[in-house]
Amino acid sequence: MSHRERLDRMRRAMEAERLDALAVRLPENVLLLSGFWPMIGASVLVFPREGRPVCAIPHCYEYESSLSLWEAEPAYYRYGVLGAPDQASALRDILAQAARGKSWRRVGYEADFETVAPPWNSGEAQVPAAGTREIYRAAFPGSELVDASSLLQTQRRRKTAYEIAKVRIASEISAIGLEAFERLAVVGASGVELAADVEREIMVRGTGYQGAFRVRAYAQVAVGPDQSAIGYRPNEVSTHRRLASGDVALLELGVVADGYWADRTRVRVAGEPTADQFKVFDTVLRAQQAAAAAIRPGITGAEVDEVARSIIRDAGYADFFPHLTGHGLGFGYHESLPKLAPGQADPLEEGMVTSVEPGIYCKPCGGFRIEDDVLVTETASEIFGPFRNSLTY
Amino acid sequence: MSHRERLDRMRRAMEAERLDALAVRLPENVLLLSGFWPMIGASVLVFPREGRPVCAIPHCYEYESSLSLWEAEPAYYRYGVLGAPDQASALRDILAQAARGKSWRRVGYEADFETVAPPWNSGEAQVPAAGTREIYRAAFPGSELVDASSLLQTQRRRKTAYEIAKVRIASEISAIGLEAFERLAVVGASGVELAADVEREIMVRGTGYQGAFRVRAYAQVAVGPDQSAIGYRPNEVSTHRRLASGDVALLELGVVADGYWADRTRVRVAGEPTADQFKVFDTVLRAQQAAAAAIRPGITGAEVDEVARSIIRDAGYADFFPHLTGHGLGFGYHESLPKLAPGQADPLEEGMVTSVEPGIYCKPCGGFRIEDDVLVTETASEIFGPFRNSLTY
Repeated sequence: MSHRERLDRMRRAMEAERLDALAVRLPENVLLLSGFWPMIGASVLVFPREGRPVCAIPHCYEYESSLSLWEAEPAYYRYGVLGAPDQASALRDILAQAARGKSWRRVGYEADFETVAPPWNSGEAQVPAAGTREIYRAAFPGSELVDASSLLQTQRRRKTAYEIAKVRIASEISAIGLEAFERLAVVGASGVELAADVEREIMVRGTGYQGAFRVRAYAQVAVGPDQSAIGYRPNEVSTHRRLASGDVALLELGVVADGYWADRTRVRVAGEPTADQFKVFDTVLRAQQAAAAAIRPGITGAEVDEVARSIIRDAGYADFFPHLTGHGLGFGYHESLPKLAPGQADPLEEGMVTSVEPGIYCKPCGGFRIEDDVLVTETASEIFGPFRNSLTY
Repeated sequence: MSHRERLDRMRRAMEAERLDALAVRLPENVLLLSGFWPMIGASVLVFPREGRPVCAIPHCYEYESSLSLWEAEPAYYRYGVLGAPDQASALRDILAQAARGKSWRRVGYEADFETVAPPWNSGEAQVPAAGTREIYRAAFPGSELVDASSLLQTQRRRKTAYEIAKVRIASEISAIGLEAFERLAVVGASGVELAADVEREIMVRGTGYQGAFRVRAYAQVAVGPDQSAIGYRPNEVSTHRRLASGDVALLELGVVADGYWADRTRVRVAGEPTADQFKVFDTVLRAQQAAAAAIRPGITGAEVDEVARSIIRDAGYADFFPHLTGHGLGFGYHESLPKLAPGQADPLEEGMVTSVEPGIYCKPCGGFRIEDDVLVTETASEIFGPFRNSLTY
């Protein structure tokens, strides 16, 4: 459960890439390599292959960072108050100091993260752009700057025991939202109300769960056949449409707890489902459970996808499952690796976390999807934060 | 109330900068120049100085974009479903088609936005990075790529009549949250509960207000003297600490409605305030109202700041107001321009929107801040979404 595994693994990967140091600024990557999840302003971690990391941090987070930094030496700068120095100058000075006398030839940085996870206050994401590159150039004048985006994404694929414990907490918190959804998705409830209530329950009951400090949820609820039949679209907007008897409610839910993510989906029918709805639900549930159970080290993303897809095909719904079966996650709501989809020939590895989320979308039934987050264990798989599936009470 | 003012103004600015076209991808800037607020995946707007703009859009948003695009021609590409093309290739082809035969010498792009506004689903922000630059290079092979970040920030300073109407809606929706906070901040309520309830009320009651479709709130509530006395920090984390009699509750609130933002703060005391708390509150309120009333075209940011700061100084609290008096906003929770702070010599201009948010933070009183968003009108100022200030019931 130590962070040592992550740091050792990253240092070996840096050696293979001939990187002498990394400079990372995205909150998700600072968390990955320092234990500290930045919240606002720029926190930049200088992570050398040899020697102690240094993390530049706005001074207002002295307390939080002192609780969470593993081994990086904090370097605080004044921020957000009158008389604070120019942020770029402050960062440049701290980074140059960290690099002094080190003769780093190649420094990796995040040149190509285009989808980023927000800090807890997701109203403002902080990303590295041209200004940050200029800071790096000035702070590391003798070093070549190398895009380390792919290295970071690849390293994030397999979670350490420490990280698995953290992602599990996020999934267990997400189950609070699934429970609220199941309880509240009844005739008369609107999509907006269900989304807002699920988010509220997770923030109130999830904060403090297993020590979780910063918890936030992002819920979308499609209601009725028109909305849910296109519920495979990446993000539905919740509306005031109210559940009538026989309507589907489809919940898409992202949850972050101290920087680690869960991604869940549940579906309910208000009132009395039709025979077709029972059949579609049963098919999706069987596909989802079979795919989750098939996961183990060595199986490919394509093979897991086919487990789910063949069950849906055999039930006669081949044309109504238009998306992939799963994707990686953990340091973000979605991560690029692994991918459970046709053509994905890479074998899954122990420590990977993937969503498993087959679905069937049609009218007049509506859209049905079930999603859990699944860990690849040493020999099989484990569903994080398991929570029941039922179509109605 | 037409979008024409914005497009004409931007084209004049492009002429001054000798830019033949802009390529923008941040949702906030696509909204600025097209009327469409992207939600997920990459929507890239090519905005030429002459001729019709083209907007590359994931096909799943065909309906939403058809309702909101002003004059850009939509170019849809398949996204998020099996068989979708590689996103980079799809974008490159659409952009190259838009540029065909145009001989653009200089194309501006967003090279240096480091703080970005999320789309409605703020769990995943989409930003341009190295991959997007490569798409631009391939699509505009004969053009010089020019950083247009500063141009965009500068143009966003002064809002058009159309944009003012939209920002006003966001502020009026934020008042729903202020009302909920006032009602719920009583002895026994926790910071987490208050934050979650304010967010819930805004999502449920704000969605649909004046036609608002995608509404989301970001609330933080500091509770008690220890938390609120450092409540000038850019973002407080709400905790389970419950309001005891005499405790301050300090609400920091960001609200987005269809891409336009409000930023508000209110403070309450649960139970019976002390004489000192009444005095601090009264001082902050007078400072905030005087500063808001002083705003007009031609006054400088430093002068407005001094109006607030001198009232706080004269009351004996000079050392307890450590931050600026206000900042621009509208296309983001915070915008870089204008700034109400010491040393800011630029005059305010009609159409600017700025927060006005003086505060006093000390113990044992706690932290007090009052924040509204203020429009610079032709001759004076207007507070958006006005909502009362009172310390208790």
